[in-house]
Amino acid sequence: MSNTPIRVAINGYGNLGRGAEKAILASDDLEMVTIFTRREPDSLDTVSGKVASVSDMADYVGQVDVCINCGGSATDLDQQGPETVKLFNTVDSFDNHSHIPDYYATMNKHASAAGHLAVISSGWDPGLFSINRVLSEAILPHGSTYTFWGRGVSQGHSDAIRRIPGVQDAKQYTVPVQSVVDRILAGEQPELETRDKHLRECFVVAEEGADQAAIEEAIVTMPGYFADYDTTVHFISAEELQRDHSAMPHGGRVIRSGETSEGTNQVYSFNLALDANPEFTGAMLVATARACSRMAAAGETGARSVLDIPPALYSPKDGDELRAHFL
Amino acid sequence: MSNTPIRVAINGYGNLGRGAEKAILASDDLEMVTIFTRREPDSLDTVSGKVASVSDMADYVGQVDVCINCGGSATDLDQQGPETVKLFNTVDSFDNHSHIPDYYATMNKHASAAGHLAVISSGWDPGLFSINRVLSEAILPHGSTYTFWGRGVSQGHSDAIRRIPGVQDAKQYTVPVQSVVDRILAGEQPELETRDKHLRECFVVAEEGADQAAIEEAIVTMPGYFADYDTTVHFISAEELQRDHSAMPHGGRVIRSGETSEGTNQVYSFNLALDANPEFTGAMLVATARACSRMAAAGETGARSVLDIPPALYSPKDGDELRAHFL
Repeated sequence: MSNTPIRVAINGYGNLGRGAEKAILASDDLEMVTIFTRREPDSLDTVSGKVASVSDMADYVGQVDVCINCGGSATDLDQQGPETVKLFNTVDSFDNHSHIPDYYATMNKHASAAGHLAVISSGWDPGLFSINRVLSEAILPHGSTYTFWGRGVSQGHSDAIRRIPGVQDAKQYTVPVQSVVDRILAGEQPELETRDKHLRECFVVAEEGADQAAIEEAIVTMPGYFADYDTTVHFISAEELQRDHSAMPHGGRVIRSGETSEGTNQVYSFNLALDANPEFTGAMLVATARACSRMAAAGETGARSVLDIPPALYSPKDGDELRAHFL
Repeated sequence: MSNTPIRVAINGYGNLGRGAEKAILASDDLEMVTIFTRREPDSLDTVSGKVASVSDMADYVGQVDVCINCGGSATDLDQQGPETVKLFNTVDSFDNHSHIPDYYATMNKHASAAGHLAVISSGWDPGLFSINRVLSEAILPHGSTYTFWGRGVSQGHSDAIRRIPGVQDAKQYTVPVQSVVDRILAGEQPELETRDKHLRECFVVAEEGADQAAIEEAIVTMPGYFADYDTTVHFISAEELQRDHSAMPHGGRVIRSGETSEGTNQVYSFNLALDANPEFTGAMLVATARACSRMAAAGETGARSVLDIPPALYSPKDGDELRAHFL
């Protein structure tokens, strides 16, 4: 909207941080300030060539409009979020759904105290999926909402397989049951058990001499992870795993099926098919950083989520252009 | 968010007004105040039983938080919008895309002068489709956006057929070319001509003794409406038209296909499959009225579109509940 670029920093340089970096570099209205890392800065090969030690973060106050925290929710963000928002406006992808209210309260307190704005839990789920769950239920109060994930790699399930004795490496795909998706898209509102919605497909590299039958049994009966699903296990070589399963595809759907009057079905659906989950999530975080910077510039402080952000603020285009060409 | 219901009125009682009425009655947090009509109030059979003459509108000042203008953009809204916003906050579905900037400017002027808020161009296109066009391009700046409409009835095209001599009645369906939709969903970004995206399917009741071949020729060669499309014409009886083509199904898709890095495709898609277009559009207008009322209560005045509305404001649920269960 203005010609002054929005100055964005990244905190943490794993797959997500790298995805965010690419998205910043692809956006003319954003300036890539630096990437903060806990590692030795010289050891990082960033796309932009920019990198700084996380211990020097305070030196960047006044040079950064928004900092995108790219740590994981499991451990990093609980600490990274409150610390960073003391210095900057922040955006993150906190995705531990059951802890979101606590994390929101914590970030709201620290952001408000610092006079900064913290947008939490952006990305696609939470994020775009959340927007669609809220909008669709607001429009169709009488109905059912379904979320499907995949086909995509689940890091948590892959890790769980790797912890089984005799397993050298593994990748697990979450796969929606297409016949059920099709029924819902056709207007049905079925009651579904966990098993009805998703399959789990595992590609496992066994150690030499390991008991494959025992590994398979350990996987398919694992409570919490696999026992409630129809699970298939394929044993493959390390080379095959590397060659065929190194990408990070993901995606999924939110479907709301509702009635506006007796017998009148309306089906609302949102779908993502992603070649690379971290690059797409990074791109959504960057669009969110644009919105965050504008809301902060307008005087907003405290914590927000994507549910609090008007769509226009994500776009580099101004209101006149959006109304003329996108509305 | 509060226990005081939001008081909503409807202006105009065609299919859309009736759809909006049903949606208000289906929402616990909204109160159906009345329906304004230009017709003789006693002649209207409304679901709620509420009805008033449009000439008594000013008597309702102070009793209405938002008035939903349900006139058509072709003629009604240009007048209805500015007049109504002098009295109330308003929501409408102005959908004449090329005139939106002018209409926005007009409504902005009148709403600002009156200290009211006017949300224009809600519904699904413009409306939900607009939100998705803006969001998806903001996330995926390098790519292509495609909009498909249908399968659904186009009123304008049906009317165009009815004006042909010898035609007694007609319904026209706009039908997306599924093979092209599938290619785009699979990650392709084809360059498409008008003819590649949609088919037009016409069901025509000819007058007795009319020359059907001449009617068909007049349809398929009609410039602006049919000449640029592959069009099929079916002649049927008045009874068949009534029996099989009285519903108003519609829907469509917005698809954004983009790359976040060389060769990495990300496909974002939004889809509606609607049994009854006016009921769904009415439901979206009602959710928008909820948001409009809240934004006005927070002091906002002037014109807005759905691009300016945070998702949470459409929902009857408060921020805590949305974060806990929808984020």
